[in-house]
Amino acid sequence: MTGRPILHEYAASANCYKIRLTAALLGLPIERREYDIMKGETRTPAFLERVNANGRIPVLQVGDRFLPESNAACFWLADGTRLVPDDRFDRADMLRWMFFEQYNHEPNIATLRFWMRWVGEANFTDLQRMLVPVKQEAGTAALVLMDEHLATHDWFAGGQISIADIALYAYTHVAEDSGLFALTDYPAVLRWIARVEAEPGFVSLGA
Amino acid sequence: MTGRPILHEYAASANCYKIRLTAALLGLPIERREYDIMKGETRTPAFLERVNANGRIPVLQVGDRFLPESNAACFWLADGTRLVPDDRFDRADMLRWMFFEQYNHEPNIATLRFWMRWVGEANFTDLQRMLVPVKQEAGTAALVLMDEHLATHDWFAGGQISIADIALYAYTHVAEDSGLFALTDYPAVLRWIARVEAEPGFVSLGA
Repeated sequence: MTGRPILHEYAASANCYKIRLTAALLGLPIERREYDIMKGETRTPAFLERVNANGRIPVLQVGDRFLPESNAACFWLADGTRLVPDDRFDRADMLRWMFFEQYNHEPNIATLRFWMRWVGEANFTDLQRMLVPVKQEAGTAALVLMDEHLATHDWFAGGQISIADIALYAYTHVAEDSGLFALTDYPAVLRWIARVEAEPGFVSLGA
Repeated sequence: MTGRPILHEYAASANCYKIRLTAALLGLPIERREYDIMKGETRTPAFLERVNANGRIPVLQVGDRFLPESNAACFWLADGTRLVPDDRFDRADMLRWMFFEQYNHEPNIATLRFWMRWVGEANFTDLQRMLVPVKQEAGTAALVLMDEHLATHDWFAGGQISIADIALYAYTHVAEDSGLFALTDYPAVLRWIARVEAEPGFVSLGA
């Protein structure tokens, strides 16, 4: 490995924040390079050629290698540390919640936050207007499942904080930004949010 | 671990097939329990209480523990085997493609297959009708990205077959079932499909 990992990011994206929070909890220094996704800076030929052919951020650069996908970047940072369980089943169970986050949580809760706060209802297409209640229902189901799990567990996997908690914390703690979810409906989720924020080294999304 | 792992599944789902294929390539015996998702057999109180509160299959049962999410179940089976790279970056890069599969590939290519073959166009809602071209475009972008990668790599991560290849093979090799994708447009993908199918122990989706 040559030098510090470099995070190619858009700082307001909580997908990028997952990586910063993982690094912070582990005390690992990383460099940051900012791209304005609203101005298409991750769709330039140079970005697509060098950083990510998918045109998306975050991407974690390690030497001359590039790792897209926020949860994969968290795994690279945390592999072999206290943020990944040693037990084989617990490690897979951690990934279970991270795949759940990408399939059931992020496309609903994060997408609605982006649409309501960055796009704006006045600019919605007909399709977006039809999808809002669908995504609100699916996002609610994700929060209900999390709340049920957290009613009897402090953390998502292995009885310890792991990158599954970081992945799910990122968009859960700002779920209300869309105006479509109320976290007071999920008391176990609120207690878990407080546990995450009490971790030594914790940094906030805006930091 | 008590006895063989038990796969709770709907055999025609390629998400379930990922787990069978991983076990087959590793020579690991698993038991299979079939549920008819079209008859709501994964939404019964007993299933939700005991197997998966998310109401979805596949779920891999290991002793008295239950692991949802197809890619997490593949990871549990393959952790420490030749299907997961030893190198730290390569292991994260494998997960990168598995998160890509769940975020960019499965919701488009698998969902369109399910809609066209199981639901039927005549039964589509207005929303489904509007989403077909959106998902066709996003699925095409996923196949283009795969084809570009495979034009210069035999496998997705670490220069070896891994569970990233299995996860992506599952719905790619049946992408044409929807009638909305033509695999002949992706020659490197076709050569990679042939490589996967030539692996010792390979089993087909219908087996």
